[in-house]
Amino acid sequence: MIMKSKNETKIVGESGKQEIIITREFEAPRELVFKAYTDPELLKLWLGPRGYEMHVDKFDARSGGEYRYIHTGKNGEEYAFRGVFHDITAPESAVQTFEFEGAKGHVSLDSAKFETLPDNRTRVTSISVFQSVADRDMMLRSNMETGVKEGHERLDELFEQGLVK
Amino acid sequence: MIMKSKNETKIVGESGKQEIIITREFEAPRELVFKAYTDPELLKLWLGPRGYEMHVDKFDARSGGEYRYIHTGKNGEEYAFRGVFHDITAPESAVQTFEFEGAKGHVSLDSAKFETLPDNRTRVTSISVFQSVADRDMMLRSNMETGVKEGHERLDELFEQGLVK
Repeated sequence: MIMKSKNETKIVGESGKQEIIITREFEAPRELVFKAYTDPELLKLWLGPRGYEMHVDKFDARSGGEYRYIHTGKNGEEYAFRGVFHDITAPESAVQTFEFEGAKGHVSLDSAKFETLPDNRTRVTSISVFQSVADRDMMLRSNMETGVKEGHERLDELFEQGLVK
Repeated sequence: MIMKSKNETKIVGESGKQEIIITREFEAPRELVFKAYTDPELLKLWLGPRGYEMHVDKFDARSGGEYRYIHTGKNGEEYAFRGVFHDITAPESAVQTFEFEGAKGHVSLDSAKFETLPDNRTRVTSISVFQSVADRDMMLRSNMETGVKEGHERLDELFEQGLVK
């Protein structure tokens, strides 16, 4: 049985702006949340919607490193993503570029901030800025919301099961 | 004697947005303009305002490469900048992150597009998107306009002198 999380994923994309701001709290200390976001062995267990296998082609989580991963659906459909890490400051923040290879040339800059909350909890604030309002709107119209929310729920489950340590 | 360029640098930062769009035309074919933007030996001859020496610490102009350079003023004051190249597609486009080390944590995503115009001329369109409107406004309030315009005039002079080939 999957428990409904008490933590909600908040996705804000204000009209006419070229950013998306996502906030989410987790029932785990900052070091472990940061690790879940930057260790490819953990990341592939939770990132993205349910029902996809995630294969990590490369994931060199240091300032100047590159990453690329592929989500494969049940009918074999593939979605590949790539980018570079501008800055990784453990366990506080990560700044990286992001591009869906199916929409090549449309790149965003994603900044994640990890904040310690009382009771060993953590808040993650992610800001994605796009090259245009049109690019930002394209992302909002895609099914990104489901993927982000289900990903966060899958990460909740990893913490509940003690799989991040 | 320095000729006044017939080409104007246009810098647009619309109120309330988090981007700056810079357009400039050059009296040189696209391959040479692209080269002047991505070859560190040429870049250090023109990038930035007059009166500064530019030292290139690293400049690995390929998708996934890193760069860092320092401008030194007449009184020894230093301004260092760094980032990563998300994508370099010669001679069409370059997408990279950008950070002034004096304002660490404030990063922009810079996309330059190089278009061929008639008569062996080239238009460069650069879009910088910032993590917030405040960051964008901070950049507009800095003396970036002088630096950008003088840099473009210095590049005009390199083309006039046949130093880019």
